[in-house]
Amino acid sequence: MIFSTQGNHFIVELSGCNSKHLTNLAFVENTLVEGVKKAKATLISQNFYQFSPQGVSGILLLAESHCSIHTWPEEGYAAIDIYTCGDHTMPEEACKYIAEKLQAQKVFFTNIIRGRFNESKNSHEHVLTRDSLDYMKLNTAQKIETSHKQINKQPVLVGS
Amino acid sequence: MIFSTQGNHFIVELSGCNSKHLTNLAFVENTLVEGVKKAKATLISQNFYQFSPQGVSGILLLAESHCSIHTWPEEGYAAIDIYTCGDHTMPEEACKYIAEKLQAQKVFFTNIIRGRFNESKNSHEHVLTRDSLDYMKLNTAQKIETSHKQINKQPVLVGS
Repeated sequence: MIFSTQGNHFIVELSGCNSKHLTNLAFVENTLVEGVKKAKATLISQNFYQFSPQGVSGILLLAESHCSIHTWPEEGYAAIDIYTCGDHTMPEEACKYIAEKLQAQKVFFTNIIRGRFNESKNSHEHVLTRDSLDYMKLNTAQKIETSHKQINKQPVLVGS
Repeated sequence: MIFSTQGNHFIVELSGCNSKHLTNLAFVENTLVEGVKKAKATLISQNFYQFSPQGVSGILLLAESHCSIHTWPEEGYAAIDIYTCGDHTMPEEACKYIAEKLQAQKVFFTNIIRGRFNESKNSHEHVLTRDSLDYMKLNTAQKIETSHKQINKQPVLVGS
């Protein structure tokens, strides 16, 4: 059953990123804006903040939900989430684009399929898919697609 | 090991909410702002949007990361996430406050402990805790605390 409220919420860890990029608010902002275009999502507004001495946080409000980033340049680490509703969006494309622009050496994510109500349990449920992509090895769209097909075969159902 | 990048990311499903509240941007915005105060988080900025014919999306940028909401008044459903870093924050208090203000009948969440790098696996990892809270039965802070203690005994480790 497909619910009108159903969506994909990607929780993404990027490590080994280019620290100079992670300190640059304009670069980070442009990267996210271009990323959500790749995902075929519709941007409503954007809001970014520069921390002192370093680090950037920012959020894009989308017609399909949101995309956020928080960076730790001193660790080469960025925490991203991309939450989209609707079949027309491809959040994994945003993930891939952002990881490449920030020159992430490692990408790890969990995707939570949310907004699903289980009538028999009388509760919402979260269906999880996950994967770790090493962008040093997986650097083509074809390989990313293959990876996602493998993930979808083994969802993890988290009930109440 | 505690990482400087470590944080809790609560993915929260609220159902059976008061639909009038979910259509009211000012009410939703005030609820989130008060909620993050309960969590002891520091608000940087806020950004909300009213959909037509109904529905509200909004995000609070926090010094500790962010808090977002997306509402489906026609379904009595709200999707929330609360992502906070630092030991001083209590994201579960924001979750509880928001659920109560929106008069949610059911609350289901997964908390992802993120920003943890597993050296032996040479990969990030996500540690998940989850629970379903029926606010018709669990309506005191003491019971919420008890529930969280139970959750923390059985984390689910999601590796690569």
